[in-house]
Amino acid sequence: MLIVQKFGGSSVADADRIRNVAGIIAENYLLGHEMVVVLSAQGDTTDELLEKAAELNADPSKRELDMLLATGEQQSIALMAMCLEAMGLPVVSLTGWQVGIRTNADYSAARIRRVETERLRRELDKKRIVLVAGFQGVNKFDDYTTLGRGGSDTTAVALAAALHADRCQIFTDVEGVYTADPRKVPGARKLEEITYDEMLELASMGAQVLMNRSVQMAKRYGVELEVLSSLVRAPGTKVKEVTRSMEEMKITGIAKDENVARLTVADVADRPGSAFRVLNAMAQAGVNADMIIQANGREQTNDISFVVAEDQAAKAREALIERQKAIGFDHVSVDRDIAKVSVVGAGMMSSSGIAAVVFEAFSDEHINIQMINTSEIKISCVIDAASADRAVAAIHRRFFET
Amino acid sequence: MLIVQKFGGSSVADADRIRNVAGIIAENYLLGHEMVVVLSAQGDTTDELLEKAAELNADPSKRELDMLLATGEQQSIALMAMCLEAMGLPVVSLTGWQVGIRTNADYSAARIRRVETERLRRELDKKRIVLVAGFQGVNKFDDYTTLGRGGSDTTAVALAAALHADRCQIFTDVEGVYTADPRKVPGARKLEEITYDEMLELASMGAQVLMNRSVQMAKRYGVELEVLSSLVRAPGTKVKEVTRSMEEMKITGIAKDENVARLTVADVADRPGSAFRVLNAMAQAGVNADMIIQANGREQTNDISFVVAEDQAAKAREALIERQKAIGFDHVSVDRDIAKVSVVGAGMMSSSGIAAVVFEAFSDEHINIQMINTSEIKISCVIDAASADRAVAAIHRRFFET
Repeated sequence: MLIVQKFGGSSVADADRIRNVAGIIAENYLLGHEMVVVLSAQGDTTDELLEKAAELNADPSKRELDMLLATGEQQSIALMAMCLEAMGLPVVSLTGWQVGIRTNADYSAARIRRVETERLRRELDKKRIVLVAGFQGVNKFDDYTTLGRGGSDTTAVALAAALHADRCQIFTDVEGVYTADPRKVPGARKLEEITYDEMLELASMGAQVLMNRSVQMAKRYGVELEVLSSLVRAPGTKVKEVTRSMEEMKITGIAKDENVARLTVADVADRPGSAFRVLNAMAQAGVNADMIIQANGREQTNDISFVVAEDQAAKAREALIERQKAIGFDHVSVDRDIAKVSVVGAGMMSSSGIAAVVFEAFSDEHINIQMINTSEIKISCVIDAASADRAVAAIHRRFFET
Repeated sequence: MLIVQKFGGSSVADADRIRNVAGIIAENYLLGHEMVVVLSAQGDTTDELLEKAAELNADPSKRELDMLLATGEQQSIALMAMCLEAMGLPVVSLTGWQVGIRTNADYSAARIRRVETERLRRELDKKRIVLVAGFQGVNKFDDYTTLGRGGSDTTAVALAAALHADRCQIFTDVEGVYTADPRKVPGARKLEEITYDEMLELASMGAQVLMNRSVQMAKRYGVELEVLSSLVRAPGTKVKEVTRSMEEMKITGIAKDENVARLTVADVADRPGSAFRVLNAMAQAGVNADMIIQANGREQTNDISFVVAEDQAAKAREALIERQKAIGFDHVSVDRDIAKVSVVGAGMMSSSGIAAVVFEAFSDEHINIQMINTSEIKISCVIDAASADRAVAAIHRRFFET
């Protein structure tokens, strides 16, 4: 069996953690599997390098930033290789360009164009464990690029797709994907399986076990993922196209996102294109607007409200104020004291009444729903931040603890 | 003018040092020169990486060690690039493989096979300052290799040769090459020029401003070197084939090497091949033996003495004792309490009487010469370590301070 494994920065943070991961790799290798292992930079390496850069240049070019940051993963694979060598196992470490991970030229947020598998295959045929530096590739100029946040997951999925791996295991510091945040909801259950779409909705709702990009790529290439812990030996959660539980379980998980803010553009002139101009301002500022609501304003005007990521709220506000005359509105207000609670489940598609149960839970808890957004497999509600944990627990009880 | 500059690890050890070096590079660039700059890893980076490796594997493979260590220089060039960007200068950093420094497969001590200049030329044509990671290359397997001690100097010389550079400047933490160690001999003078051969002799005698390998390469390709300080703006010392002073100055420099030990193999059987067997044992152990003397032993036997690097003395002794029966000797003694004082000068070739002046200096100081070795441009004497500084000062006075 060909297995691609990925271990994040906290899993290789120091010598003891490296030895622990080496044990997991060795165990699988000695069972006779072909092993390709993607590693991130050790613990704080990336932050330390960014600090060094900031001392010299507040705004360095992304090309040189990628040149600098790519060294972190290279160090990880070399150190892991040495650890496996000490265990007497055949191993070889390869950087992004050695593997042939070719990307576009979008430094710091590069997209993988293709993965050459020749060298990987050659090393696997020699019965070697192959360690690959995650997060990095090279572009057509033979310059180093990095893949942005969650880049090592993307590397693992791309390699699994290119090699037609039998398994793609993403090791993290949690044991899998849960029905709700287990630190907050005592009855939260680890899911055995979850669909790509459910995972995408949960990830974008703040349950960031996997970055959306790697899940999207896994879905596109049909790579079945497994999310599991590098510290606790237990089965994790499988992420796949169709799950056995889709019919049985009406919903899969409940997530809370506190990194949200609501912008209200008050008294927008009621003429054609006003809403477009507001949302276009967001697009130009690179801000994602979500859950857009338009309500009647005082007279001949509308209030347009929407939700943005909290750390983009200031930028969003500025973009609107810059265009106040062009758009035509009275003022902008920002409410950061909100949370978005989302209920996700592919089972919703074939099951009616889910929304009713969710709304009933809010009602019973006397929680006021400020905004609602639904998709085929998700219901999101914006409520005040203080009630969020209570809301998640109440919904969780109704679906999972009866 | 195309200038190749090289800055060592202490010259780029922190943000302030990097800014200082960036100033030197910028100054030359703004004078209109084409700049190719080779950098070493920052200060203690290499040692820190070796420590991390040692935690995981006492004897890691050289391939993985090279993979690990190559990151140090890559970080240096990225950080320097950011600093030059902050000054508004066009710059690009390139690792060994990006430049196309192809080496043999001798990991950790690789030899440069060839340097591809296409990318370098292309970047220079774009009027960019090109920063190159020193000490590293790639072999025919596209694996990272490192060039061993003094590797960054070698990179600089190789690039200067390949690009037919007009100047090759090696910046260090000394101001140039001196007639003697200026910390020990107050009258020591900085040399304006020195020949390759003189430099080679001085370097191997412990005055390690430049590693022999880079000087040999410079001599072979006729690359004129300049050794100068990154902290003090002053002309340094030029290293070249023929110097103006060759005829005038009888000697160029006086060096002291305390990293030496004398081995005496006592009562070697006086039969053909005995000396060969002794020296062959050294060759097999990878120990360089120097200044070999054979003297009559007690009866029908000889005492064979020679000098080795002090840190190889134990290994040399073991190698002899392992072969005691085959060689046939009584015992081995090691004297670590010695120093080698060497007088170097291409002028010796055309001038007789140098040796006499040297010996007279020792005699006047009542220093006993234990061993003598001479070459066309060098006289080396082994004396007791305690007298070495006094000897150097006495010889220096006779040649330079009259």
